[in-house]
Amino acid sequence: MTASRTISLDAMGGDAGPAVVVAGAAIALERHPNVDFLLFGDEARIRPCLEPYPALAERSRIVHTDSVVAMQDKPSQAVRRGRSSSMWLALEAVQKREADFVVSAGNTGALMAMAKLLLTTMPGIERPAIAGQWPTLAGTCIVLDLGANIGATARQLADFALMGAAMARAVLHIERPRVGLLNIGVEEIKGIEEVKQAHAYLKAQSLAIDYRGFIEGDQIGQGVADVIVVEGFAGNIALKTAEGTAKQMAVWMREALSGSLPARLGAVLAHSGLNALKERMDPRRLNGGPFLGLNGIAIKSHGGTDALGFASAIEVGYDMAASNVLERLAADLEALHGSLGEPEQARGGS
Amino acid sequence: MTASRTISLDAMGGDAGPAVVVAGAAIALERHPNVDFLLFGDEARIRPCLEPYPALAERSRIVHTDSVVAMQDKPSQAVRRGRSSSMWLALEAVQKREADFVVSAGNTGALMAMAKLLLTTMPGIERPAIAGQWPTLAGTCIVLDLGANIGATARQLADFALMGAAMARAVLHIERPRVGLLNIGVEEIKGIEEVKQAHAYLKAQSLAIDYRGFIEGDQIGQGVADVIVVEGFAGNIALKTAEGTAKQMAVWMREALSGSLPARLGAVLAHSGLNALKERMDPRRLNGGPFLGLNGIAIKSHGGTDALGFASAIEVGYDMAASNVLERLAADLEALHGSLGEPEQARGGS
Repeated sequence: MTASRTISLDAMGGDAGPAVVVAGAAIALERHPNVDFLLFGDEARIRPCLEPYPALAERSRIVHTDSVVAMQDKPSQAVRRGRSSSMWLALEAVQKREADFVVSAGNTGALMAMAKLLLTTMPGIERPAIAGQWPTLAGTCIVLDLGANIGATARQLADFALMGAAMARAVLHIERPRVGLLNIGVEEIKGIEEVKQAHAYLKAQSLAIDYRGFIEGDQIGQGVADVIVVEGFAGNIALKTAEGTAKQMAVWMREALSGSLPARLGAVLAHSGLNALKERMDPRRLNGGPFLGLNGIAIKSHGGTDALGFASAIEVGYDMAASNVLERLAADLEALHGSLGEPEQARGGS
Repeated sequence: MTASRTISLDAMGGDAGPAVVVAGAAIALERHPNVDFLLFGDEARIRPCLEPYPALAERSRIVHTDSVVAMQDKPSQAVRRGRSSSMWLALEAVQKREADFVVSAGNTGALMAMAKLLLTTMPGIERPAIAGQWPTLAGTCIVLDLGANIGATARQLADFALMGAAMARAVLHIERPRVGLLNIGVEEIKGIEEVKQAHAYLKAQSLAIDYRGFIEGDQIGQGVADVIVVEGFAGNIALKTAEGTAKQMAVWMREALSGSLPARLGAVLAHSGLNALKERMDPRRLNGGPFLGLNGIAIKSHGGTDALGFASAIEVGYDMAASNVLERLAADLEALHGSLGEPEQARGGS
């Protein structure tokens, strides 16, 4: 039995807007037949998208608005002028507890700024992090921060460990996740000061995680940890670099399997194995990055994803809402802050 | 015709010591028949390794020393106590102009510390960068810094652009390299302050590079630039993450091509294409990272590489020595510093 949930969707977010959002919601409804949807956006555009999905139409309420946050809008702009936008209203539904969580494929910076304002940050948290799922040889791990912040204090990195652990409990169903701290392997300078200090914090505290110490970039994909903590600049670069490398290898693999007649024949024979590989590498499967550290669940979907990808993002929100991790996370963070004392000065810009 | 060069080798560096260093030198000698070698290290161990290579033995001089820098030695320790080590002596040969360049597969931090002391940094350069070659869909690009420093000022990032361009001229034979500045793509915070300022510097100055602006992690492998500039923490993480992703994909590919009898048969048929793919991904091909910003050429080889990989590292040094890029780099850096004025405060620790 699946619990009844109400899901708030920014129907105008993402490259394709309502077409992808509605089709994604339809997939989510098949997975969880008794969820309800609030669809925020242009009714004249949303309504036709619902036509192929009568079951979804029945469980959806459209809240019309003409206002939309554009991809190129600055967050500060969006927050000032976008208070009747589909993004704002979709977030507000979570703030007002009319919905259990919100998913948007819109402007990341605007979504983050609005989410902070409407949902507010947990006690002791200045800036939320964006987390994401990363495919590994062992399954999936969670990496954060993927770019919500640039630079992080030792304390913020320790916060990220607890935030990631909360997501691992909800999404990966691991009660005591293994947590690694991303660091570099050049001998002279074994790490940034903040990273070394965060390591000391995480080692010293008795937290409900299995802290595994430093890991290097080439270990992420090996599945040595369930949660990998890194500040947002390097985290974003790591994520994008891994995506780029995977695409590059896929191009080379296609070339290897199409360069000659025997190779093409070989590819036909290896068809089912290659399809399984394609599925493993499918970024849609792991779409959906929650903002962690907020008093509410907000999920960012990739702007260019399709219905299947958008449904994955909904799934992340569903898992997080179903597992009630936020209350526990708030308590875990408070306990950590209590034992660490006053915060030090933040490093890096906003 | 290849010019006569003398190459200084730390024969004791790397996991395998003289066995790999000497076999690598033998490959380099086949490529460049009139180079000479200075081999620094334990004569009793080096001598037997030379036996299979009479031509190499003839062009090599062994300089015996018992002292070796261990992989776990701290750089400060190595510099204080390691002045009769094979690493120190090999570097000293370049300092004394007895050799055109040095290659070591030993302790990176110790090599960097000794290289700074012996070769000294170019005017206005505080800390050299480590550069590396990165395979792309279009060929090869150069990425720096790969972890010599943590954090970088805008000015240092601009220096890296010129250093990488010098290497691109020598190794990729591109006179006016395309240079990109690695940045993150989250809209709210389009980049670290230092990165934004470096962007402004590189746009404003008329440098002998084709500056292409910001690039993101997923573009490195696409070959959109010949030189990619990033501070060392994120650069090291990007490199390791790409290596890890490539290995992960290789495991998955093997599984895809061995999971069933037809798949295995298909792999046999696609044999030559798959071999070409393996070669493209071969990390030995692009081994060898120069320290840039020094008054002399020092190349770091991967500690775990084999003879072919070590020969690649020698090739990088050979190309750099042959192209006389250092004099030009020193002049380019001086011109840049002249127009930028006094340096600002550095960010991040050492």
